[in-house]
Amino acid sequence: MTKLLVFGHQSPDTDTITSAIVYSHLKQSIGEEAEAVRLGEINQETQYALDYFEVEAPRLLEDMKADHQDVVLVDHNEFQQSAVNIKELTIHGVIDHHRVSNFETEGPLYMRIEPVGCTATVLYTIYKEHQVEIPQHIAGLMLSAIISDTLLLKSPTCTERDIEVANQLAKIADVDINTYGFEMLKKGASIDGMSAADIVGNDAKSFELNGHTVRIAQINTVDPVEILALKDDLLQNIDERIERDNYDLYMLVITNILDNDSIVLTKGLTDKVDAAFDVKVEDSEALLKDVVSRKKQIVPPLTNAFNA
Amino acid sequence: MTKLLVFGHQSPDTDTITSAIVYSHLKQSIGEEAEAVRLGEINQETQYALDYFEVEAPRLLEDMKADHQDVVLVDHNEFQQSAVNIKELTIHGVIDHHRVSNFETEGPLYMRIEPVGCTATVLYTIYKEHQVEIPQHIAGLMLSAIISDTLLLKSPTCTERDIEVANQLAKIADVDINTYGFEMLKKGASIDGMSAADIVGNDAKSFELNGHTVRIAQINTVDPVEILALKDDLLQNIDERIERDNYDLYMLVITNILDNDSIVLTKGLTDKVDAAFDVKVEDSEALLKDVVSRKKQIVPPLTNAFNA
Repeated sequence: MTKLLVFGHQSPDTDTITSAIVYSHLKQSIGEEAEAVRLGEINQETQYALDYFEVEAPRLLEDMKADHQDVVLVDHNEFQQSAVNIKELTIHGVIDHHRVSNFETEGPLYMRIEPVGCTATVLYTIYKEHQVEIPQHIAGLMLSAIISDTLLLKSPTCTERDIEVANQLAKIADVDINTYGFEMLKKGASIDGMSAADIVGNDAKSFELNGHTVRIAQINTVDPVEILALKDDLLQNIDERIERDNYDLYMLVITNILDNDSIVLTKGLTDKVDAAFDVKVEDSEALLKDVVSRKKQIVPPLTNAFNA
Repeated sequence: MTKLLVFGHQSPDTDTITSAIVYSHLKQSIGEEAEAVRLGEINQETQYALDYFEVEAPRLLEDMKADHQDVVLVDHNEFQQSAVNIKELTIHGVIDHHRVSNFETEGPLYMRIEPVGCTATVLYTIYKEHQVEIPQHIAGLMLSAIISDTLLLKSPTCTERDIEVANQLAKIADVDINTYGFEMLKKGASIDGMSAADIVGNDAKSFELNGHTVRIAQINTVDPVEILALKDDLLQNIDERIERDNYDLYMLVITNILDNDSIVLTKGLTDKVDAAFDVKVEDSEALLKDVVSRKKQIVPPLTNAFNA
């Protein structure tokens, strides 16, 4: 086996980047060769966490070489969210907290998926099992991932286990969860320096729903009005992406982390959005009341709407 | 959530039956409602283990009712090996040691797969994590599964972890691994009372290989000559199954547990068998030298042959 490359999904978020770093650290701690890499640009929220705990970003993987064919996936398993040539690689492990779909291997592997809010929560358990001590910077990165994925422990995806682990990690990382967490989320919610294309592509993932390709991007904000001011540009960019990549439906979910509602800008088969959320998309826009979680509150009703 | 139903694959073997019982025990021990069920008849080897440790066989699941829609799969994940209506059920967990293929869920789940020789080895680790004490009869069943799947720790699928766990379990179960194991395997290797149809269908699993349906049955023996005496009847039964169920290739793998070779009786696209194992199937028969493991030594080269 060559050195294990550990990476998360395309359009990386904080859980994906930190989990690659954290799992590589764990593998190295038990004497295995592993390197964290990333499939896309670091967002501002993640950069804040990396800077705070003084950790370097993983190397951007531009080209997966044949001699780097042994990989571990973190924070995802669906092939359309993974490395372009994932089917040519040997997947030795998966650490994740999402549903399983469009995933297969040729041989046995180590697969660890738990129905919790964040990959970091699963990783914490694995550290305990291996009795590997968690250093301060690693604890800080794991805590950042939990704060990010659960919107400061408030998302419906957040489980009791996430809260328990977050509290343990905050002690090791020596930060106050709320103070640190709010600063980090606010950084991620800033659109300073982002183009319309950056916003429309933020944390975007593709889903295959009953033969249709649905692309769902999500951006957190403390000021939705600031983003909606760019609506014409955003919709034009969505049109371009639909044209270029043949999506059947595109959704840009703008989530207000202060009141936990989302506004969606959407083009394509928007009658599926109407059906899924019992709303009426008007002028390519709809309010999704109390919806913050793509995984728990957007993908499942949308799956049902496409299967109906 | 209704009571969890826990079951293994069709054509159950010892690991599948005991893992359903064992995981239900673990779930009950941590205060969750769970019941082990089975999708097919108990074989003689498994019955020997159940009798030895005085455990009742799980209930045969004839009809999956709508009110029993919450399930955990043990010792398999591929849908074609599972309950007929698996796509209508909610899969809450998977404990397994096989490759992942033809499997998906609508939501997050608990998934625990390790590249070891036996599901029981994974279950042992989960008991330890939950700090649940393993009673003697449960240890006995887990040990039986490891002995069965690894042919008394001799199969190439057997890992150091399987050996380590088997030794721990033998202490709790208070048996000598070799003495007990040989008796159990010999029981399973007996064809007393089996018809040609029973032999051809023994521990049979379907695999989708590059668009072809391949059915692979396996039977252990200490006397291959005794089985080959029935060759005409066995081949006729294989023909009938190919006709009835539209298999593209059928392989009956007759594994000699004394010398660790297998003889395969096969019909259909047998040129794939030639290519996969560098042999020449003659008169529907070939010797597979040092091949005992379907998972590790049969499915991978066959997959390559079908993909070539």
